[in-house]
Amino acid sequence: MSLIDKLQWRYATKKMDATQSVPESKVDQILEAIRLTASSSGLQPYEVIVVTNKAIREKIKLIAWDQTQIVDCSHLLVFAAWDNYTSKRINDAFDMTEKIRSFKSEAGDIYRQKLLSTYPIRDAELNYTHAAKQAYIGLGTALIAAAYEQVDCTPMEGFDPVALDEILSLKEKGLRSVVILPLGYRKADEDWLMNLKKVRRAKENFVSRID
Amino acid sequence: MSLIDKLQWRYATKKMDATQSVPESKVDQILEAIRLTASSSGLQPYEVIVVTNKAIREKIKLIAWDQTQIVDCSHLLVFAAWDNYTSKRINDAFDMTEKIRSFKSEAGDIYRQKLLSTYPIRDAELNYTHAAKQAYIGLGTALIAAAYEQVDCTPMEGFDPVALDEILSLKEKGLRSVVILPLGYRKADEDWLMNLKKVRRAKENFVSRID
Repeated sequence: MSLIDKLQWRYATKKMDATQSVPESKVDQILEAIRLTASSSGLQPYEVIVVTNKAIREKIKLIAWDQTQIVDCSHLLVFAAWDNYTSKRINDAFDMTEKIRSFKSEAGDIYRQKLLSTYPIRDAELNYTHAAKQAYIGLGTALIAAAYEQVDCTPMEGFDPVALDEILSLKEKGLRSVVILPLGYRKADEDWLMNLKKVRRAKENFVSRID
Repeated sequence: MSLIDKLQWRYATKKMDATQSVPESKVDQILEAIRLTASSSGLQPYEVIVVTNKAIREKIKLIAWDQTQIVDCSHLLVFAAWDNYTSKRINDAFDMTEKIRSFKSEAGDIYRQKLLSTYPIRDAELNYTHAAKQAYIGLGTALIAAAYEQVDCTPMEGFDPVALDEILSLKEKGLRSVVILPLGYRKADEDWLMNLKKVRRAKENFVSRID
């Protein structure tokens, strides 16, 4: 299947089969794709929490409009962004880069100082929003990675983020939940969306050119 | 190459070869991947503007820290999000869905009314931010699609969005620029980043589990 075929195959699965589990090797590939994708200044300002625990997922379902995929999936990915850009987080990222590449550069130092002098003094909400956008790059990557592994998934914004932060103790870690992604397998005979046509804006209403 | 290999191959290209052009067929595949990817409630609240015009790209470079990829690439993608969720935009999306699927449903109507009663009354900035996040899903998809086509690209947030909106007359269309993505080919002998190790947080610092 081509990339386009895989994107045609995927859809926001509405009913998952609770009897099927995604193999850990496939989950690992999806997580690795997220880890390798791009982020602003390479900071990767978010984490992914993989929830398989059923009791915890039952709790999450209650604060997420009772969406059944949360408990019928086998792995629930929670994308949680940094609540703020701090000097420590920025320094850690640049220190890691220097360590992995085994050198310091003047350009690297200038860039580090630029971020240190702009990000931490900004409003925390603005910084969180910027970090959350990077998590959405990870989400866009995860969707394709899941399709490549022929794993179904459904991106969900419909949950109470403050309640989810509480359930997963994210605040203590300086994180805030952004978006969640159940990974599982479609239950064909109970999924109302599966056989409906994919709806997308026509290319001419979505793409324009300046040549 | 596996998906992971492709993600290892890609990097934020710092120097592109101005003598090489990405074939239109490859650009089309990348745009189609963006068009097919997911968005919240399927609204696809953004557009992609493809700029090949050199004079316009020279102007954009000036308001984007003089980053040379903007003029050395062959196609500059501009992701521009809706400046607000209006009733018209929401109704258009639901009308299109009913038309493509040739039916109306009560559940569809309830969902439409839910969005109509919540989104348009919210603060425009909040709505724009939500729309911009969806554009980042498109960006995450575009990065992989480009890698699949062995096309280089560099996601860029480093530009003056108000100035870019002005250059591309986006305000008149109810759009605001979010992020830009030059598509082109790496100029191996002049790209300082190409041969440096990719730096990512170790899996244990990026992924955690609740089993």
